[in-house]
Amino acid sequence: MKLVTLDEIKAVLPGIDLLTAIETGFVAYSEGRCIVPPVGELLMDGGEVHIKYGSLSDDPFYVIKIASGFPGNPKLGLPSGNGLMLLFSQQTGELVCILLDEGHLTGVRTAVAGAISAKYLAPRPVRRIGIMGTGLQAQLQLKHLTTVIDCREVLAWGRGVEQLRRFRRALEGFGFSLETTLDAAEIGATCNLIVTTTSATEPILRSRDIQSGTHITAIGSDTPHKQELDVGILADADKVVADSKMQCRLRGEIFKALEAGVITENVVVELGHLIGGGAQGRTTDSQVTVFDSTGVAVQDIKIANAVYDAIN
Amino acid sequence: MKLVTLDEIKAVLPGIDLLTAIETGFVAYSEGRCIVPPVGELLMDGGEVHIKYGSLSDDPFYVIKIASGFPGNPKLGLPSGNGLMLLFSQQTGELVCILLDEGHLTGVRTAVAGAISAKYLAPRPVRRIGIMGTGLQAQLQLKHLTTVIDCREVLAWGRGVEQLRRFRRALEGFGFSLETTLDAAEIGATCNLIVTTTSATEPILRSRDIQSGTHITAIGSDTPHKQELDVGILADADKVVADSKMQCRLRGEIFKALEAGVITENVVVELGHLIGGGAQGRTTDSQVTVFDSTGVAVQDIKIANAVYDAIN
Repeated sequence: MKLVTLDEIKAVLPGIDLLTAIETGFVAYSEGRCIVPPVGELLMDGGEVHIKYGSLSDDPFYVIKIASGFPGNPKLGLPSGNGLMLLFSQQTGELVCILLDEGHLTGVRTAVAGAISAKYLAPRPVRRIGIMGTGLQAQLQLKHLTTVIDCREVLAWGRGVEQLRRFRRALEGFGFSLETTLDAAEIGATCNLIVTTTSATEPILRSRDIQSGTHITAIGSDTPHKQELDVGILADADKVVADSKMQCRLRGEIFKALEAGVITENVVVELGHLIGGGAQGRTTDSQVTVFDSTGVAVQDIKIANAVYDAIN
Repeated sequence: MKLVTLDEIKAVLPGIDLLTAIETGFVAYSEGRCIVPPVGELLMDGGEVHIKYGSLSDDPFYVIKIASGFPGNPKLGLPSGNGLMLLFSQQTGELVCILLDEGHLTGVRTAVAGAISAKYLAPRPVRRIGIMGTGLQAQLQLKHLTTVIDCREVLAWGRGVEQLRRFRRALEGFGFSLETTLDAAEIGATCNLIVTTTSATEPILRSRDIQSGTHITAIGSDTPHKQELDVGILADADKVVADSKMQCRLRGEIFKALEAGVITENVVVELGHLIGGGAQGRTTDSQVTVFDSTGVAVQDIKIANAVYDAIN
């Protein structure tokens, strides 16, 4: 059994073609070539634990990911998120490897999903990227977008000047031309690729602010309670794409729009079908497209298998 | 983070008061002082994985247990069962310890549950213990019964002479006076404490063979398909006890008897209530009692916490 630390994982990540690995996962998921049971949840007073797990018939290993969020951790000088991934042989059930990634791979695979959605759905050319939120996921989204988008003009929105200052500093040296704003409407007015990464429970982006020819990647909402987009954005969009139609029925932006009755399920397309060619994405550069990411175990399965391959 | 091997676990187990630890767990469970989400299941062509997890408010750690069964393993010279337990801080979600027990602790905590049921339900005196099945769990049940029962007279039933020969050899030196039989009726006729540990899907023990004044611990059936006891045994019993009423509605002997309509749910008592004193067990030595074990995460939580304490 191999035990791999976060430093070891970070050392091999740059050499892995994560985009292809995770695209393969989304296609397998949408084509039903994998087993992904419902997410396990342990909700305690101090924090939450989510267990995502499953197997792809083509992979040697099944994967169980344990991820936690403890909101009180920052006061103790610890990150709120944590986690690990376990790989087991599909032949024998033997534990093969533990990736002690402390939740990092969840952040990365989520950012890769954002990049994949931009690859298939962003208008051409992207003139300016709007990033909403100033946390680690916002950084990762920008970094991974550079693998599929040439644009380096970025407008970042945050709730405070101090957060935006830290965000700007964290991205120094990565080649972005980064402006900041406290006005969310400015994101809609000037950016044609927008990525939302907050934990908002009320819309931060309004339908009236969105220009034609925009792609929006909605990352933040992955529960029934969180929401970043006003449901009018989904109602008006030319294409609404889910990572998992099944999950988006129960959580995320699509859930909110279905609940409000402004869209019906039959308009929603699954990302894996878009990648696989079974469904059509953007057909003109003037359309508005939305990708709603809630996080699917196939992403964890594929990134864990890819990291294992790179280390061995 | 501490990584503990099976050998290290086996070295500390004899010094731990598992009976008290797991009794405490059953009481907490029945009194609702714990969080035990539904069991996670990953069912693949080659094998099955079960994820049991939860937390007790009084414990420092929450526990996630991953257990697998791969029926083809013995052909490869590997045990079919495998597993590990992970302990995380309830304060921060940090991974504190991995017990690489290879499934051993599941076997032990199951045997301890059998001993607890005998402590509270067996008639006095136990004249002869009937053990059905010749696997590792049958050995563990007998060994753990010695902590609560003085009787060392054992009649073992198995499906073949060779299995019974191996079983007898495995128990040599443990102080039992052990006879064997291929006739299940002989178990019912001569034993007043019976433990069934097979993976049977058809009853191996018949209502007509059970004498008054018998306690039966049914270990083997933990799915909707497995069954060791003819439902008439539960129908005729004076007391039917479940480790978890919620689980026994869906799997095990009680499920089978409910499904057949020969008992109703209100006759079923939970083990934790018996231990805690909130429910009555056996009231005379002539009654027939049945304990149905399906395996509850509190057993895993308590044994994992106890092993961690013993090692640190």
